[in-house]
Amino acid sequence: MRNVDVAIIGAGSAGLSARSEVAKITENYLVIDDGPLGTTCARVGCMPSKVLIQAANDFHRRHKFSAMGINGGSDLSIDLKTTMEHVRSLRDRFVRGVLGGISSWQDTHLIQKRATFIDQNSLKVGDEIIKAKKIIIATGSKPILPDAWNEYKDYFVDSDFFFELENFPKKMAVLGYGVIGLELGQAIHRLGVEVTFIGRRPVVGGLTDPEIASYTWKKLSEEMDLSSDGIEILGKSKNGLRIKTGEREIEVEKVLFGLGRQPMVKGLGLENLGIEFNSKDVPLYDPETYLVKGTEGVYLTGDATGIFPVLHEASDEGKTAGFNAVRENRTPFKKRTRLSVTFSDPNICLVGKSYKELKDEGIDFVTGEVSFEGQGRSIVMLKECGLMHVYGCKKSGLLLGAELFAPSGEHMAHLLAWAIASKKTVFEILSFPFYHPVLEEGLRAALRGIKYNVDAKEPPLEVPLA
Amino acid sequence: MRNVDVAIIGAGSAGLSARSEVAKITENYLVIDDGPLGTTCARVGCMPSKVLIQAANDFHRRHKFSAMGINGGSDLSIDLKTTMEHVRSLRDRFVRGVLGGISSWQDTHLIQKRATFIDQNSLKVGDEIIKAKKIIIATGSKPILPDAWNEYKDYFVDSDFFFELENFPKKMAVLGYGVIGLELGQAIHRLGVEVTFIGRRPVVGGLTDPEIASYTWKKLSEEMDLSSDGIEILGKSKNGLRIKTGEREIEVEKVLFGLGRQPMVKGLGLENLGIEFNSKDVPLYDPETYLVKGTEGVYLTGDATGIFPVLHEASDEGKTAGFNAVRENRTPFKKRTRLSVTFSDPNICLVGKSYKELKDEGIDFVTGEVSFEGQGRSIVMLKECGLMHVYGCKKSGLLLGAELFAPSGEHMAHLLAWAIASKKTVFEILSFPFYHPVLEEGLRAALRGIKYNVDAKEPPLEVPLA
Repeated sequence: MRNVDVAIIGAGSAGLSARSEVAKITENYLVIDDGPLGTTCARVGCMPSKVLIQAANDFHRRHKFSAMGINGGSDLSIDLKTTMEHVRSLRDRFVRGVLGGISSWQDTHLIQKRATFIDQNSLKVGDEIIKAKKIIIATGSKPILPDAWNEYKDYFVDSDFFFELENFPKKMAVLGYGVIGLELGQAIHRLGVEVTFIGRRPVVGGLTDPEIASYTWKKLSEEMDLSSDGIEILGKSKNGLRIKTGEREIEVEKVLFGLGRQPMVKGLGLENLGIEFNSKDVPLYDPETYLVKGTEGVYLTGDATGIFPVLHEASDEGKTAGFNAVRENRTPFKKRTRLSVTFSDPNICLVGKSYKELKDEGIDFVTGEVSFEGQGRSIVMLKECGLMHVYGCKKSGLLLGAELFAPSGEHMAHLLAWAIASKKTVFEILSFPFYHPVLEEGLRAALRGIKYNVDAKEPPLEVPLA
Repeated sequence: MRNVDVAIIGAGSAGLSARSEVAKITENYLVIDDGPLGTTCARVGCMPSKVLIQAANDFHRRHKFSAMGINGGSDLSIDLKTTMEHVRSLRDRFVRGVLGGISSWQDTHLIQKRATFIDQNSLKVGDEIIKAKKIIIATGSKPILPDAWNEYKDYFVDSDFFFELENFPKKMAVLGYGVIGLELGQAIHRLGVEVTFIGRRPVVGGLTDPEIASYTWKKLSEEMDLSSDGIEILGKSKNGLRIKTGEREIEVEKVLFGLGRQPMVKGLGLENLGIEFNSKDVPLYDPETYLVKGTEGVYLTGDATGIFPVLHEASDEGKTAGFNAVRENRTPFKKRTRLSVTFSDPNICLVGKSYKELKDEGIDFVTGEVSFEGQGRSIVMLKECGLMHVYGCKKSGLLLGAELFAPSGEHMAHLLAWAIASKKTVFEILSFPFYHPVLEEGLRAALRGIKYNVDAKEPPLEVPLA
């Protein structure tokens, strides 16, 4: 038996962030992870997907070549085996980076075994009992795969396995067009796989603004085969599965699951803690300290919470839990301004309060709009596709949120998120510089749309307003 | 003779901005421009250069194709005639946009003739005398071409003529590597022209931070032939000119002038105003109202001031002059936070206070640094090239400025400029969201570098700090 100040279950992004905070205060901690090490982000998430998307978008760009006087674009071809080797090669570099960060403490503080709770202060780790004053659960998430289709599972690919593929089948269905489905699905579509996206609602990437959602659906449908009629698996066929969506029957070799990720909280012995759970079997916890309700020292952080599984939130949550686990008084931290990016092309981003949140909360807001069809820099880039809505407080002109489907949306989303975090009004933002010719000038047009429709008068100006 | 409230000389970006403000208050105004109409920006500046750069960078990208499994990249070729037709075709679209904006008032308010001053309230326009209560000079700028080399001028190309080229010679020298020289020069280099850049100091794009400047010089030198040894024209050769830079003698077909732009203030009869001029023959003026010193109603705006000739500044200056020209009391407007972008690849940007300004003003500052070699998203993009310095107040951690040579620098520069305009400290900025994996995480690393070295203590936090 060992006694430690803190035990952290999981050496992923949340667990490693927690560890950094804990190690600032005590050397008497343990991190327990039964592998594989290297984080979801680096192994099977953010990083390898972006490498694939980069290759796919670079290849896709050939369709614009002849207009610009670049000859030979139509003779370009893709060697998917090399593409996937490239993806894995960079992935391995990112994983090595993570493992390098672990190396200085793994001999003394890492146990590569499975942990289960005995009680709120005790874990069984292999044959050993570990007593810990505080325990942080950072077990992460895994792809959602419905049990009902177990008989077809040989034909299923999830994002954990996806990056191990040596090559791609000719025809695939992608189930779900949230972040994962859309990112990977559009990438393999652009790399030459015949893809049918299947979901239940004509809304992609978590958009809640009906106009942005319908524009995005329309534009993506022009490029790809999107069905919102749900899926029925009819049975196996010679080379794959026969499936049905709406009235259409299709044969596909594989089905890629892009239905999102679920917290990995089963098999941890959480039932021994005398705590309450939500409908998804996730312990109830305080979202500002990550303390599990009904405990004095058990924390739940990162993807394991089942809420918004993105890296920067996982890091923050781990940090918060670690920070609080080694202090007498807990500090309740707020979340950063909400920011989510789907790295489709164009990007889909939600920033600050979504349209739905504003409506649900009964906030009186004004919408500014810009189309990237006809926007100067979009024309230059031959990327005239996109629509952005920016929301401002009707009374004050305070920037509240935005939903967008726009070229270089990831960058615009940061600008918006920082302006929201800074509690800036559209008047103030319009006094900031916008260079020329940039996509950000599209954002300016949307901000002007808000400015003309808010109750507040333009304040005395220091700079001439845009 | 006509009497008007306001006469605006020049229908470029500054003049048109001034007109918008004037027209809000009075219909009794005139805009005088002897053409060509369409603005420097749309005709021969920002817009066509960005179209050329887009084509060049898309073509250049082929060098990364094989690593990603895209075959055939080395068989791509460029048809420069088509490229230039594409550039002109989009340029014409932008010019049409400008002319469309003029169409509603040109019949009643535009005179397409040359104006010269008789006195502070009178202009000679063709055979007509126009009396104006206020006169706004917005005559713009033209490329700098030294008179001394007049005998070789058949071999010279400036940015006014550049976009009319049907094709490019095999070998060119580019004089100067400020914004124009570097943007156009790198573009034609990437499109296959053999280019030698010639200047007098190994500093490109106006950088003032010695480390950023020397890194940028080094990296660009790896791609292109850069000489800082000055130019001597030895004489004409069979197909062009023989020139000398340092010890090297080179034969080039043409010389592209990228020495910047000079204000067009000659031939306007400014000597009739009884005013003072600076060493460049530009009237002295108040930089917060644009009123020419020694006058009660003559304004000087836009590129004609000879200061920082970029579009968003020209628009602001025109707006300020127009706003003040139609009001009893003049409002002194400040300039927006400084932002300049050279659309080279990677971009070169200066934001807020430059390194040199901070030094000259004796400000006690701390530098945060990030290299984009090894930065996560740069690796993904196969764009591992770049260095950024961010400057913060040593005492408070207030963000002051930045100089950078970085992939997608234009976007990062906006983020930085807005944060500076918002008067944010590095502590506050680090509480804003940074998505993953994005280039902005590089910026975060630089901000942390400042945070660790400022005198101010981390304030009580609402969100966990990055």
